[in-house]
Amino acid sequence: MPISFAKAVPFIVFILCVTGIPVAAQSPSADSAQIRRIFDEVLLNGGAYKNVEELTSQIGARLSGSPQAAKAVEWTEKKLREAGADSVWLQEVKVPHWVRGEKEMGTLIRSDGKRQEVPTCALGMSVATPKEGVTAQLVEVHDFDELKKLGIEKIKGKIVFYNHPFDQRFINTFDAYGEAGKYRYIGASEAAKYGAVATVLRSLSSSDNDFPHTGAQRYVDSLPKIPCAAISTNAANLVSRILKTDPSAKFFLKQNCRLLDSVLSYNVVGEIRGTEHPEEIIVAGGHLDSWDLAQGATDDATGVVQCIEIIRAFKALNMEPRRTIRVVAFMNEENGLGGGRKYAELAATNQEKHIAAMESDDGGFTPFGFGLNMEANRKSRIGQWKDLFLPYNIWRWDGDGDGADISPMTGVGKVPGIGLMVDSQPYFELHHTAADTFDKVNKRSLHLGAAAMASLVYLLSLYGL
Amino acid sequence: MPISFAKAVPFIVFILCVTGIPVAAQSPSADSAQIRRIFDEVLLNGGAYKNVEELTSQIGARLSGSPQAAKAVEWTEKKLREAGADSVWLQEVKVPHWVRGEKEMGTLIRSDGKRQEVPTCALGMSVATPKEGVTAQLVEVHDFDELKKLGIEKIKGKIVFYNHPFDQRFINTFDAYGEAGKYRYIGASEAAKYGAVATVLRSLSSSDNDFPHTGAQRYVDSLPKIPCAAISTNAANLVSRILKTDPSAKFFLKQNCRLLDSVLSYNVVGEIRGTEHPEEIIVAGGHLDSWDLAQGATDDATGVVQCIEIIRAFKALNMEPRRTIRVVAFMNEENGLGGGRKYAELAATNQEKHIAAMESDDGGFTPFGFGLNMEANRKSRIGQWKDLFLPYNIWRWDGDGDGADISPMTGVGKVPGIGLMVDSQPYFELHHTAADTFDKVNKRSLHLGAAAMASLVYLLSLYGL
Repeated sequence: MPISFAKAVPFIVFILCVTGIPVAAQSPSADSAQIRRIFDEVLLNGGAYKNVEELTSQIGARLSGSPQAAKAVEWTEKKLREAGADSVWLQEVKVPHWVRGEKEMGTLIRSDGKRQEVPTCALGMSVATPKEGVTAQLVEVHDFDELKKLGIEKIKGKIVFYNHPFDQRFINTFDAYGEAGKYRYIGASEAAKYGAVATVLRSLSSSDNDFPHTGAQRYVDSLPKIPCAAISTNAANLVSRILKTDPSAKFFLKQNCRLLDSVLSYNVVGEIRGTEHPEEIIVAGGHLDSWDLAQGATDDATGVVQCIEIIRAFKALNMEPRRTIRVVAFMNEENGLGGGRKYAELAATNQEKHIAAMESDDGGFTPFGFGLNMEANRKSRIGQWKDLFLPYNIWRWDGDGDGADISPMTGVGKVPGIGLMVDSQPYFELHHTAADTFDKVNKRSLHLGAAAMASLVYLLSLYGL
Repeated sequence: MPISFAKAVPFIVFILCVTGIPVAAQSPSADSAQIRRIFDEVLLNGGAYKNVEELTSQIGARLSGSPQAAKAVEWTEKKLREAGADSVWLQEVKVPHWVRGEKEMGTLIRSDGKRQEVPTCALGMSVATPKEGVTAQLVEVHDFDELKKLGIEKIKGKIVFYNHPFDQRFINTFDAYGEAGKYRYIGASEAAKYGAVATVLRSLSSSDNDFPHTGAQRYVDSLPKIPCAAISTNAANLVSRILKTDPSAKFFLKQNCRLLDSVLSYNVVGEIRGTEHPEEIIVAGGHLDSWDLAQGATDDATGVVQCIEIIRAFKALNMEPRRTIRVVAFMNEENGLGGGRKYAELAATNQEKHIAAMESDDGGFTPFGFGLNMEANRKSRIGQWKDLFLPYNIWRWDGDGDGADISPMTGVGKVPGIGLMVDSQPYFELHHTAADTFDKVNKRSLHLGAAAMASLVYLLSLYGL
């Protein structure tokens, strides 16, 4: 027989609960034991690692609109059922269908005519170059201020080379990514303002490596859309060195990526209905789509399988949550956020009451905390549970990052948002590259993250927020 | 001009210091700023990653007594000088010289004669098999109790297969290693008590993988020395499955490892002499020797280069420590602990006053704390510095592990011992295998660990303990 949470909780807690006093601290031993059971179950019998192997090695890259993304939807539906979700359904999402086309070509052409091949990858949603490619002088800038100073006179007709490295002084590499990200996201349009014909970006990476890192960029509609590509950090260092002695070196870029017609795709949703407050929903998600260069292992197959594991663990332990637990594999995080927007829209339309939204999209590495994007009083309430997580090396609760997919619904005055924080050091060596493959996933780290999420979901489902 | 710590500290701190009141809490902003400078310096200009590449890729495996170990001694001496140590010297250490010999052979022989090759590796310090190998029935046990129950009758003339997996429920994989370690360390002699002719060990690993993991074992002098080898965890699972249906399957093991004459080797020592209390020494170390199957990257090239980086960072920042900072690359941790013992012996002979001993030997992954092996009042004193480390995600101080090499001198009533705690999840997938190579080292994680150590050394050198 399934054990109801309610039955497992001492009577005094129930009394305190109905009188509205925060109860977590009143039953630390029961909660502590239950969380230990969750961790034991996931560490001993967890299915997330096997699932991430299937999703990455068998299905592979899952860019929105691709056949693999469609396969991944089917796969997730099946997995959520197998995990024991009470119900599983799809939410229709219209997604952009951008394709990379033939392998891109990049060449640095020195003024003496010597050519040096430089592997490039088109940034997501970039336009193609003309068929014959584009060749122009390469102008290096380190930031938008430099770009502005050079102005139309120096930029017009040239290719802008954004060489803005990660600031290594940030401890959390996501902070360095946040700071450098604008050169990828709006760099093409910024350069187009001054008449650039293309842009080449130093990859957003924390290390010197040989992988071009792709990722979303967005054109400003009122400006010419120019082709944009990334080169690896090692290549950026090389190109920069060459430009110092040969400032009139040119760059040849050829890519035939393009945006096709939008495609119908899906968020995949599974839930365990709450026994006492089924109308109160705790949602946990990751994103099912990935970039196209590898297998999207740490971005974000890991998040998806961790969320499936929450359902599996609850079922394996016969835990019947008081409140509804819903798991979502979001579509189209990488180049549109269509899935996240659609989920929030439907939640509003259907007047659903979400008491918390949680996401895992930082790579599935060893977890150490949760970011809390919510009001201070709610943070305090969750803060009462902190000690329960210390045995698992989950200690940090002072960040406020939650997750891109849940961001359309979370924040202060909105649904409380929660993000799993994991060791960020390896992430931006792999992020959006051909190196983001299954072998980068550590089984125990992945399962520790799933158990941490399941434990926090357990507390939320028991006590609300 | 170098900046003396003393000059950088506000006057009030100096007053408090000479009157013996703990001072750390009195100058949090000065210490905080200095620690920020240390982290910035190491993250921006750290040499540890380049050094670990040299030590692993250029020198490689460095088992005690090997030519590579001798090369590593020379290399470390040079690197400590380049880092700016005031003085660098060698301490003679007599080390065992065990060699693996030809590639080991292992074969499972089913009772129907079918043969299945099973890659093995001799455990460190094991004796050879007879030239023709040893072939005998394989008896699986999961622990010493099972072995004892089977007794002489069932064990005599057989090969004991220790199949004791890591307990995945431990959060820190070192705890699982500690629990399973005895089957490697004393398993051969325990089996010899009952007349076993050899032992085969399930590798001490946190994951299912294909690498046999070697490591030290120690014979009891009064018992027959029988050959002992490890097989991978995947192979152990396979062998165990086969034994279930074919319990009279045999195992063929052949290895010609042997112990040669002892060799003269060295600890490598470098120091920055303290300006005010040069007689008070803070020692930080890692071990220079490694197992022979790969490059000893995470065990423990990472620890050695992190300690060299402490010296480099102090010199680069013109920090003149009040107390002496000494860095030691210990020899022979893996199969004898000769270097650690010798260091402690010389410290006693020379009546040196060590106020703290620190070690990094957990793999150079992302750091999150320090283990403290010392009296409670000293722990409290260090505890006052905890908040200074939180910005760097260094939060845990409640463990008591320090390090094998410093263990001959550390503990309660002895020299306070300190161990860098790092993310342990990946470690026992690589530990003592052919997979422990340079590519497993993450530059930022390595440098964060070096900066954390340098910061704690800074505080110890300023305030004592």
